[in-house]
Amino acid sequence: MFDNSETTNISQLGEFGLIDHLTKNVKLYHPGSQKGIGDDAAVLDYTGKKVLVSTDMLLEGIHFDLAYTPLKHLGYKAVQVNLSDICAMNATPAQITVSIGLSSKYTLEAIEELYEGIYLACEKYRVDLVGGDTSSSKQGLVLSVTVLGYADEADIAYRNGAEEGDLICVSGDLGGAYVGLQLLEREKLIYLENPNIQPDLEGKDYIVERQLKPEARQDIVELLKSMGVKPTAMIDVSDGLASEVLHICRQSNKGCNVYEEKIPIDPMTYETAREFNLDPTVCALSGGEDYELLFTVKQADYDKIKNDVDISIIGYVTEPAAGCNLVSKSGGVHELKAQGWNAFKK
Amino acid sequence: MFDNSETTNISQLGEFGLIDHLTKNVKLYHPGSQKGIGDDAAVLDYTGKKVLVSTDMLLEGIHFDLAYTPLKHLGYKAVQVNLSDICAMNATPAQITVSIGLSSKYTLEAIEELYEGIYLACEKYRVDLVGGDTSSSKQGLVLSVTVLGYADEADIAYRNGAEEGDLICVSGDLGGAYVGLQLLEREKLIYLENPNIQPDLEGKDYIVERQLKPEARQDIVELLKSMGVKPTAMIDVSDGLASEVLHICRQSNKGCNVYEEKIPIDPMTYETAREFNLDPTVCALSGGEDYELLFTVKQADYDKIKNDVDISIIGYVTEPAAGCNLVSKSGGVHELKAQGWNAFKK
Repeated sequence: MFDNSETTNISQLGEFGLIDHLTKNVKLYHPGSQKGIGDDAAVLDYTGKKVLVSTDMLLEGIHFDLAYTPLKHLGYKAVQVNLSDICAMNATPAQITVSIGLSSKYTLEAIEELYEGIYLACEKYRVDLVGGDTSSSKQGLVLSVTVLGYADEADIAYRNGAEEGDLICVSGDLGGAYVGLQLLEREKLIYLENPNIQPDLEGKDYIVERQLKPEARQDIVELLKSMGVKPTAMIDVSDGLASEVLHICRQSNKGCNVYEEKIPIDPMTYETAREFNLDPTVCALSGGEDYELLFTVKQADYDKIKNDVDISIIGYVTEPAAGCNLVSKSGGVHELKAQGWNAFKK
Repeated sequence: MFDNSETTNISQLGEFGLIDHLTKNVKLYHPGSQKGIGDDAAVLDYTGKKVLVSTDMLLEGIHFDLAYTPLKHLGYKAVQVNLSDICAMNATPAQITVSIGLSSKYTLEAIEELYEGIYLACEKYRVDLVGGDTSSSKQGLVLSVTVLGYADEADIAYRNGAEEGDLICVSGDLGGAYVGLQLLEREKLIYLENPNIQPDLEGKDYIVERQLKPEARQDIVELLKSMGVKPTAMIDVSDGLASEVLHICRQSNKGCNVYEEKIPIDPMTYETAREFNLDPTVCALSGGEDYELLFTVKQADYDKIKNDVDISIIGYVTEPAAGCNLVSKSGGVHELKAQGWNAFKK
């Protein structure tokens, strides 16, 4: 009983046993979560609010590599990438459902670790796990999360609301998650060649965390609200800055100028990108997985946001005929192109 | 261009191209679906209603076998099994999100076929596809559907509301989906042994359809409403009658008597089960995937439902101390046991 190496085969529990075990301590934070796990469907109350829903699936070998992704981090990240979509509507996430497909190689202890990460994210963001599905998988680990959230109608920020002259803003810094991934991939290869060499990630915590443990920027949604700023358009940065800027411009039928020198890049991201012979700007534009918020605000709101260290103004919205441009540090004007998904996720 | 054998590799399209292609003709049926696909999250209006959410994941090799499952049927079924969960709350399904993981072997035409089935289900049940996620998969096909629905609070039927003396009812007939699966598995084995032998499913359409093309019983929800009957408890039959009866009894803290002779079994199910040396009652009790509704009603409602051909009264609810019993055709009393998932889904 006190032997740490003792493990439990999940097939001993069966589906219902596993669900019961994993959810027996589930806490509900929202009064609107009227009925959570344990029936055919959860029952939710959103009196007076609009309901938002989004979903993201994470597949082993595509979205994560268990060679360097602790299961707890994976569970945490699977929730965060979903919460981020609700934040990107300028809304508040409230509930999630989690479906997992597991091969028989997983022990109960491994799944518990995964759920620890899920529950940690739920606790930190006051989000309720209200349902899901658990299944065996003949292949790798499959994680599918759906998130529900709410907002007053007037607060919702769509992608299509950007107007000419609006300022283009982004929270936090960019490119770190992608550079962190390069680092993890490199250390994995070194380890596979010689398992005696320990991974060297010293001093790289920040970018490794950016990759393994992203945070949805609900704080930015709250910050903007407290400043009295409603974004005219908003999206989260999951596929790289370029792709997201283009989404907003296309859906708003506008052009833009984005200034390379204004793109926020952390010094560690910058330095490590250089070590890999990568252009830090390209990492920010096309790397993805930063889960920062990209948004546009009216020029009149400039004074409210200009001094916030967590918000960078990186450009402005133009008429559609002007196209979507990146103004380089040297002043050259280049067409902004999205290479996120196609370049990195094959 | 008119060559039917021409196929399109999905990697040519990229994720966004694929999503655009698959969703460009999406129709929204619900006025409450304020914003569907195309932003970070869908925006829904449920003024005055409770919101219900449920999710189910289907994995290749576990939940379906593409050797005998046409992709269109698979898409249709993936939606139905989800709608069924909302019906099982005595509620109305309204929106779905669909996430798919695809290996590169799938052509665009194959995915279109899958979506044809999804859209067919949406059209028939007036349900809106409002979001999803598309990803490559290193393994088999992964389908994760989340459904949202709504109900007036007073109409919602939970699993825990059964009272002593209530009648236990089930819609349609049971066991067909499981026997249909046996038939498909047999024909697959014959085909694998000798590809010149064509599958012999003649005259077996009904049970093959029960397996490949189930229908959520929204009609029963509407029927009960029109009769003025509110179920005291309800669940859908996805894991076999025994498992579902036990869920209701456990969650309601009650016992039951279920009468074998009252369990509705279609003659074709009965006859084909016999061909396979299977006990038709066991197929109904443990087979699962029938997606009928199991529910309890007050005795006072007996006259309202007794003549409906689509509803069978199979037993009644007792005090918990009496246990959960199956009364066999010969009058013997046996403890009701759930063997659904453990027996068949390993």
